[in-house]
Amino acid sequence: MAEGGRLQGIEVCVFDAYGTLFDVSSVARGAQAELGERWAALSELWRSKQLQYTWLRGLAGHHADFWQVTGDALDVSLATLGIEQPGLRDRLMALYLRIAAYAEVVPTLRALRAAGLKTAILSNGSPAMLEAAVNNAGLAPLLDAVLSVEAVGVFKPHPKVYGLAGMHFGVPVERICFLSSNSWDAYSAKAFGFQVLWCNRFGQAAERLPATPDGQIRQLDELPRWLGV
Amino acid sequence: MAEGGRLQGIEVCVFDAYGTLFDVSSVARGAQAELGERWAALSELWRSKQLQYTWLRGLAGHHADFWQVTGDALDVSLATLGIEQPGLRDRLMALYLRIAAYAEVVPTLRALRAAGLKTAILSNGSPAMLEAAVNNAGLAPLLDAVLSVEAVGVFKPHPKVYGLAGMHFGVPVERICFLSSNSWDAYSAKAFGFQVLWCNRFGQAAERLPATPDGQIRQLDELPRWLGV
Repeated sequence: MAEGGRLQGIEVCVFDAYGTLFDVSSVARGAQAELGERWAALSELWRSKQLQYTWLRGLAGHHADFWQVTGDALDVSLATLGIEQPGLRDRLMALYLRIAAYAEVVPTLRALRAAGLKTAILSNGSPAMLEAAVNNAGLAPLLDAVLSVEAVGVFKPHPKVYGLAGMHFGVPVERICFLSSNSWDAYSAKAFGFQVLWCNRFGQAAERLPATPDGQIRQLDELPRWLGV
Repeated sequence: MAEGGRLQGIEVCVFDAYGTLFDVSSVARGAQAELGERWAALSELWRSKQLQYTWLRGLAGHHADFWQVTGDALDVSLATLGIEQPGLRDRLMALYLRIAAYAEVVPTLRALRAAGLKTAILSNGSPAMLEAAVNNAGLAPLLDAVLSVEAVGVFKPHPKVYGLAGMHFGVPVERICFLSSNSWDAYSAKAFGFQVLWCNRFGQAAERLPATPDGQIRQLDELPRWLGV
């Protein structure tokens, strides 16, 4: 699917964090010993409620940071599934700070930096959550910036969030390649004006939202070829 | 759970439409003959994508009316489930205009009106969709107003939407009882300032959102006792 050099003029690669660089399912899987087979259902519901709460809070104007929203989403998910185990909530939240990076992340970031491109995260995550995850995965030396929505106090896909990347690097939006495995994030970032690749890890159907990403990749290591590097 | 007269000073009862007065699952169930067992999966995914698209469009500032969003959500749902049947999309959209009202809706609205209360719908639906559904279910003579988000050009839970009810009736928000079976709608309406009952038809767990409704009912016919009428 990828064609070498198909995206032109890119100076900065900006990555979504959760789902894109970091494997969200690794969190609940980390508690598989005590959750048993329920880990997958918990993982899916937790993620779904987490996103739902960001959109609802954003649209209603009731911002709270992603750490609180993640905990709230975990609470409603545990209650919905009838899971009650002493200390489990705290253990799962602690695992969120050590979320696993996908295997191709480090080599991809290295290849981009070696080609002279700048790299960054732009995420719903709070600064403390992002710092913990980035450090745990050894990504800090490979990133020029870690940008959090907390700078603008509203979640994706509010345009203010996407505006942070161009402002930080002082480059026009069309010189930024934005990557997300979250379809709605990729579509919304395209509507904002970035060049966008949707890292469609699970082969989802195309969304019916106002803008369509410039292309799809299955894993992040296909990115350098798209940039011709 | 209900206690007679627990909500005081109510002059107007405002109902969400889809899920609250109208049974959303009746739409795909209406095509059960051609969908077979897949009708339930389609129904659930269609509703989930429909709501997701309203929140994403609202937060990103890309409004389109609920008829378009409902069609977009149907398209992505059919593609996701691999359902391709000639004409099916149009038949399902036509069924949306004849969506079934829950059995207790007519007697409940009658009881409220007989007690001198005003009644209204406040819905994401476009005016044409709402008019079709209301007329099909015979609700027109039992409603003082049918209010659509199209008057403000953004979906629930944006506060502008909830503001429409007080403006229309010229009453303070605390004299309005808002009812929704959509948990997030009930919670957001409470944060706005209405007195709110969550018609929790399926026994869902409590949400973790900023405000909590004043109470829960299982069906709308419990409402008159809450109002002491």
